[in-house]
Amino acid sequence: MTLSNFEKLLKTYAKLITKVGVNVQKSHVVVLQAQVEQAPLARLIVEEAYALGAKQVIVQWTDDAVTRQMFINADEEVLTNVPQYKIDEVVDWVDQGASRIALVSSNPDAFSGVDSHRISEFQNASGKAMMPLRQATQANKVSWLVVAAAGEAWSAKVFPNLDTKEEQVDALWDAIFNATRMYDEDPINAWYAHADLLQSKANELNAEQYDALHYTAPGTDLTIGLPKNHLWEGAGSKNARGESFIANMPTEEVFTAPDSRRVDGVVSSTKPLSYAGNTIEGMKFTFKDGKVIDVSAEKGEEVLKKLLDTDEGAKHLGEVALVPDSSPISQSGIVFFNTLFDENASNHLALGSAYAFNLQGGTEMTEEELAEAGLNRSQTHVDFMIGSNKMSVEGIKKDGSRKQIFKDGEWV
Amino acid sequence: MTLSNFEKLLKTYAKLITKVGVNVQKSHVVVLQAQVEQAPLARLIVEEAYALGAKQVIVQWTDDAVTRQMFINADEEVLTNVPQYKIDEVVDWVDQGASRIALVSSNPDAFSGVDSHRISEFQNASGKAMMPLRQATQANKVSWLVVAAAGEAWSAKVFPNLDTKEEQVDALWDAIFNATRMYDEDPINAWYAHADLLQSKANELNAEQYDALHYTAPGTDLTIGLPKNHLWEGAGSKNARGESFIANMPTEEVFTAPDSRRVDGVVSSTKPLSYAGNTIEGMKFTFKDGKVIDVSAEKGEEVLKKLLDTDEGAKHLGEVALVPDSSPISQSGIVFFNTLFDENASNHLALGSAYAFNLQGGTEMTEEELAEAGLNRSQTHVDFMIGSNKMSVEGIKKDGSRKQIFKDGEWV
Repeated sequence: MTLSNFEKLLKTYAKLITKVGVNVQKSHVVVLQAQVEQAPLARLIVEEAYALGAKQVIVQWTDDAVTRQMFINADEEVLTNVPQYKIDEVVDWVDQGASRIALVSSNPDAFSGVDSHRISEFQNASGKAMMPLRQATQANKVSWLVVAAAGEAWSAKVFPNLDTKEEQVDALWDAIFNATRMYDEDPINAWYAHADLLQSKANELNAEQYDALHYTAPGTDLTIGLPKNHLWEGAGSKNARGESFIANMPTEEVFTAPDSRRVDGVVSSTKPLSYAGNTIEGMKFTFKDGKVIDVSAEKGEEVLKKLLDTDEGAKHLGEVALVPDSSPISQSGIVFFNTLFDENASNHLALGSAYAFNLQGGTEMTEEELAEAGLNRSQTHVDFMIGSNKMSVEGIKKDGSRKQIFKDGEWV
Repeated sequence: MTLSNFEKLLKTYAKLITKVGVNVQKSHVVVLQAQVEQAPLARLIVEEAYALGAKQVIVQWTDDAVTRQMFINADEEVLTNVPQYKIDEVVDWVDQGASRIALVSSNPDAFSGVDSHRISEFQNASGKAMMPLRQATQANKVSWLVVAAAGEAWSAKVFPNLDTKEEQVDALWDAIFNATRMYDEDPINAWYAHADLLQSKANELNAEQYDALHYTAPGTDLTIGLPKNHLWEGAGSKNARGESFIANMPTEEVFTAPDSRRVDGVVSSTKPLSYAGNTIEGMKFTFKDGKVIDVSAEKGEEVLKKLLDTDEGAKHLGEVALVPDSSPISQSGIVFFNTLFDENASNHLALGSAYAFNLQGGTEMTEEELAEAGLNRSQTHVDFMIGSNKMSVEGIKKDGSRKQIFKDGEWV
């Protein structure tokens, strides 16, 4: 990329994020979370959001180096105590129906080597405190978007064999732009068309209303129950005001909520998982009656176990997602060490909370009603990849009849 | 500067800021305000603060480009309404006795061209909301420090004749390091010695207890009353816990509070003033019974008038400071367009609030008692420069006797 071309792409990317992603409308409040190193893109997003009529754009700057210092040095009390005014702030965002853009650019290993107990203490405390925001987001009450930017340390992790920082960052931007359809002649309309296609797949699955899915692959033989009136979703979502938005860019998945009480068998991960600044690889889970009863990992097992100990829901599933192995991200062959990308290269599952919108009428239900319907409630939601070109998935109906959905990692 | 030498200097600067500046002690909370472009220095300050035992270092990132967008585009209600949780946050800092470091690197013209009404509306609202923090700072209840870093746009303003951004930024860092004694063999001990020297000047003036000062220079003939029991201060201060700190780096001044009701005559500015992202030049004020009754400026007059309209106190003085024309900053001949530097090149005054610590027992007094003693109360505090090598200052005692303090811009 030449510099001027890059600047043009970055501006288009900011338009895509604000217009197609969170779909900023007149008088919206927008909250943008960005690492300080992403200031050039963040400023463009702010500009585009105001151009679309936002009444306020709040930038929440973060810096992994500063956060790492906190994890290592801050008093325990600081890690575990979330001040009331921080909670009041996020409640205010929810009350105002603020759209949220999370610009992710972190080094997946940003916090490696840090005492995992301290990280999980912090994450538990802030997870509890931020519950109102998480619930509003997971129920699609507000528009939200997770989208990527090429951070230096992340680029070095993905492209360790390139010689200079500049080449590494350029290569990751190139991969991000490729995955987000930015090289299309008209990226904005390309996204609208892509969202339509994923929606049509979701519609087909919704018409079937399978009672369960059966996954088979090397190291995997798993049956996942689906709740009555579950809803498959594609890329597009609608917030409480009825405005469309796209919650992930890129996205290649069609996904729904499992019945968190009806998961049985064994499943193996096929890609690394970046969690809490650590990389976890070679995971194997055994489920019984919905709950993980055995777990192991070739790398990062301790961090994985901490994740499962977050709360009861962290030991149950909250999402099942179907992604063909032929997806552009899978075909690029790049391991991004970032769920936003890697989950779109592969069939995946998530531990933790289910999305209320994955159930008919779910966004109007109480937490208790959702749990009663089989939707997992938890402070956490962590995706892990299980797909490959060797995976088959069958749909099982209430009457026991079966139909193949995926074969050799592709839609049948 | 070679890069490796710069990195070494930056690390020493971070040590100077945390150890000598706010004097971080075990279990302190430190709040650092920094522009996102200053991330490399900010990270070093965080590291040094934790190394000195801080229990928490909070970084408040800002970005002038984002703030400018807000000033231009945000709804009026957003500019004037400071949410309660923002106020609760600063009150919590005050309650915890948190030290504050403001790392200034702004382009003095960052907000030029923006509707000054909108800026002053915002500043009035946030000035009111942040009053608890301002009062704690101005009474030296907590340790605080204003210190500089070379921002790109600011560097371009100070060194417009240098060819590249890199040269401009290097030149400004060089000037900052020069002014802050960073090229001394042992900057930390050089600062302790410098603070002692300024304190001895303050002690001499405190022993005299002048009733008024009489300033004369081209365009200036001004008499400023001093309150009974006023205290001159040098570089060093003590917070409510009795810990030493230095509130400005650089600092060359010895200063006290005027009697805000006894200021009469005419005074002309001798250096540009950067205020609210605008440059104001060629100011001339006429005072009667403490109040500005006439004002003009060759540039930025409208912004100046808005400043005076902030509140009643903004039309009265809150600080008188003596700085010899031979100060290193004055001798460098550089106009920094930044009060932190330019005030230390010159005798100066401030419009707005006086410091409670400039009166014996002042930090224990109520706002009403301070006002009664003649100390100006206001939401604002803005310094402007009046010194030159043509300025004389006489001290006038209660009995009418006079003694020359400054002649041709130097201590007598």
